[in-house]
Amino acid sequence: MFESAELGHRIDKEVWDREVPALREALLNAQFELASAGFPVILLVAGVDGAGKSETVNTLNEWMDPRHIETHGLDAPSEEELERPHMWRYWRLLPPKGKIGIFDGSWYTWPIRERAHGRTKTSELDQDLARIARFEQMLIQEGALVLKFWMHLSKDAQRKRLKSLEKDPRTRWRVTSRDWKHFEMYDAFRGVAERALRATSTGEAPWIVVEATQARYQRLTVGKILLERLRARLDQPAPPVIQPAAHPPARPVDTVNELRALDLTKRLEPKEYEDELLTLQGRLNVLVRRPAFRKRAAVLVFEGMDAAGKGGSIRRITQALDARTYRIHPIAAPTEEERAQPYLWRFWRQLPRWGRLAIFDRSWYGRVLVERVEGFCSEADWRRAYGEINDFEDQLARSGDVVVKFWLSISQEEQLRRFEARQATAFKHFKITDEDWRNREKWPAYEAAVCDMLDRTSTEIAPWTLVESEDKRYGRIKILKTLVARLEAL
Amino acid sequence: MFESAELGHRIDKEVWDREVPALREALLNAQFELASAGFPVILLVAGVDGAGKSETVNTLNEWMDPRHIETHGLDAPSEEELERPHMWRYWRLLPPKGKIGIFDGSWYTWPIRERAHGRTKTSELDQDLARIARFEQMLIQEGALVLKFWMHLSKDAQRKRLKSLEKDPRTRWRVTSRDWKHFEMYDAFRGVAERALRATSTGEAPWIVVEATQARYQRLTVGKILLERLRARLDQPAPPVIQPAAHPPARPVDTVNELRALDLTKRLEPKEYEDELLTLQGRLNVLVRRPAFRKRAAVLVFEGMDAAGKGGSIRRITQALDARTYRIHPIAAPTEEERAQPYLWRFWRQLPRWGRLAIFDRSWYGRVLVERVEGFCSEADWRRAYGEINDFEDQLARSGDVVVKFWLSISQEEQLRRFEARQATAFKHFKITDEDWRNREKWPAYEAAVCDMLDRTSTEIAPWTLVESEDKRYGRIKILKTLVARLEAL
Repeated sequence: MFESAELGHRIDKEVWDREVPALREALLNAQFELASAGFPVILLVAGVDGAGKSETVNTLNEWMDPRHIETHGLDAPSEEELERPHMWRYWRLLPPKGKIGIFDGSWYTWPIRERAHGRTKTSELDQDLARIARFEQMLIQEGALVLKFWMHLSKDAQRKRLKSLEKDPRTRWRVTSRDWKHFEMYDAFRGVAERALRATSTGEAPWIVVEATQARYQRLTVGKILLERLRARLDQPAPPVIQPAAHPPARPVDTVNELRALDLTKRLEPKEYEDELLTLQGRLNVLVRRPAFRKRAAVLVFEGMDAAGKGGSIRRITQALDARTYRIHPIAAPTEEERAQPYLWRFWRQLPRWGRLAIFDRSWYGRVLVERVEGFCSEADWRRAYGEINDFEDQLARSGDVVVKFWLSISQEEQLRRFEARQATAFKHFKITDEDWRNREKWPAYEAAVCDMLDRTSTEIAPWTLVESEDKRYGRIKILKTLVARLEAL
Repeated sequence: MFESAELGHRIDKEVWDREVPALREALLNAQFELASAGFPVILLVAGVDGAGKSETVNTLNEWMDPRHIETHGLDAPSEEELERPHMWRYWRLLPPKGKIGIFDGSWYTWPIRERAHGRTKTSELDQDLARIARFEQMLIQEGALVLKFWMHLSKDAQRKRLKSLEKDPRTRWRVTSRDWKHFEMYDAFRGVAERALRATSTGEAPWIVVEATQARYQRLTVGKILLERLRARLDQPAPPVIQPAAHPPARPVDTVNELRALDLTKRLEPKEYEDELLTLQGRLNVLVRRPAFRKRAAVLVFEGMDAAGKGGSIRRITQALDARTYRIHPIAAPTEEERAQPYLWRFWRQLPRWGRLAIFDRSWYGRVLVERVEGFCSEADWRRAYGEINDFEDQLARSGDVVVKFWLSISQEEQLRRFEARQATAFKHFKITDEDWRNREKWPAYEAAVCDMLDRTSTEIAPWTLVESEDKRYGRIKILKTLVARLEAL
């Protein structure tokens, strides 16, 4: 895998002087076209120590317009980052459409390093690599151009490089004792890196191994490949669409489904409700302040038909909490900034730190509910979303977050009563729009989408709780009880 | 994930009697069209014990024309199968285009069972699932319609089912002590199954969970979904093509490459050659007879430009071997039977048992060499082949096989000399055709394809050995030395 990068590739100064000006001009032109082309470029620069990674990144910044490049030199994660799922720091830094994001240090750094040091097993490395492959596939399906460069030095070349950097007083600072320690691990590192490259070299995002013994060769290679791929993508008539043979949802052979199976006659009397509410709110308050929650976070999802009582239920929770510990995220149409990013980006950015709760009033499930039913995204998009959502929630769970998801269920008749009540009450008027009435007409389509969603995304790590909300009091208490139970189980 | 299959779905006898005749007719029609439709259907029936899996399979055979269905009830692997990579048994059984293959027991059985019994770790399960996901993706990209049914019973329903089967003397035989042992593990099994379904439910091949409490409901559901998916696929104007944004091969910025870097002046004198040849052949003979090779197999790959000396090199190896221990597979255009299967199928079927050697004179690398250069497959096809080949060789290596790959390299001038010698010598005439001359004109394209192949598929587990074959003697000895060294390392 690295053989072709151990041949001693060289570019003469003459060739360099002749080719670089034309390359720079072409890169600038391509970058200019990219700005309005509607896709981002994600460029990873990885490889062995001392292989001129950051110098290559600097060259790219020098050759192109740095205002449209976001460069990220990533080292140890910050405290902010440590308190979130591993991939959070990368999600935050994804370039929007029209920009180039260069990552010196990436989602590969940690898995490769941990395995090379023997702190993880091969099977764990493979787990990480499979997750990475799915993540990159998602980026590509969302339209990104992903370029992965691996800067390679043979063991011998690396030794020479480190020595020559050390000898020159002007570059001595570049070589740390960690670099020499890594050098001793060269063979282990090479083996792990090879496995990683093999597992994640796909047709759409293959690794490009570049020999790093000569700076001119290395930079010219990276520049030319970047130009070639960028041009190929810009000159394509249409953005590449991976169109799977999407399976239509299985049409049920009977009329039984999870929503219809709910007993919506369940009720609570006011007195009982008040008692339970106060007790549960007290317990909730204690639970989020106890030490067990200090290194955890909670992510709450509220979904339901219009007027199902999401807002009221959320208020019964927040009444019990210190305002500094939670944030409510009402999810409406995405902003312009959010539309320039992969679908899940807007939710990743809202993930809570340790000790906090993030409450989503509607959520990423919009993709498989409203976007599916209204045709706001393609069928291929919402079909792959189930897997992407499960991956997302899996990352939350692995990072220690509690994911609690509620579907608030009411009957169509009860919805009508609530709509009419909203129209009759002045201060509730704002809560009812023409869109609500239109959505109501699509009840069966929504019902089918909800059942599919439950089938595909109610998992052990992030189960859905179906809430009989015909009686608001009953619903609110069930929600509080579920939440309290989940937090108590920590 | 299983919630919707615990609702007590039922179909009345009346509905059944009304719907089944129409369904059967429609299924038969679809099956008839499938015969000439150019794609296979792979239908998995998995799930908990006692969930009527084999009864469902029987029903499908009854409803359709069993001559075009290949049903496989898989239990413990045979000795033949144990001596090959795990997936070999499934590859053998893949249905050809136009047929339906039903698997009662599949590639999921073993990973799920091992994890449920605690004999593997979660990370190992995830490794297996990632491999399965890639395998199924390959099937789909090769055109297969993949349907995966999970037959589900709640714990309570399973207990009732086993008891009622036991009570009836006519069905008592169906319940074994293993079934009850599995029942005790219900919860563990359910958790593992859920993880497996989650990790392998993709947009193109989602799991379909079917409640198994009532046979009528279960069978009608499976039949209707099969019909629906089959019809959708048959009625599609064109077979679904997953067209990735294929990256063009990186054009080199200099003229150095692995082939050109070889020193083709290397020579061996006749005397030295004879000595080494006899010594190495003797060692090879001993190596394949020693106990260490009894539970291993060797897979040898010979690739090279025309007239590079593949046949002669292979003969120098087989001269040292008992004819019962090896088989040579000369790879030419695929047969009709082979064309009805995924690309790698023809190679899977030729994998050796323990203690044997399979020698491929040309190989699966044809996909990224001749098929790429001549345009015999689409760009998307050969692009994904690198990953598929690495997966394939990874499975060989994990099963203990030694994979030894040789690229025999000669110069264009030497090839010309050999071509001319062949034409001049009567008994070598058959070795040279017009095609050879045509291929020769495409030398640069082949060279680029070879370099890409080496970059992408020379791995630690299955490295390429580049053989300087300008001097036949030198080349043959290098090949024997490499093979002997690999076998000695076992």
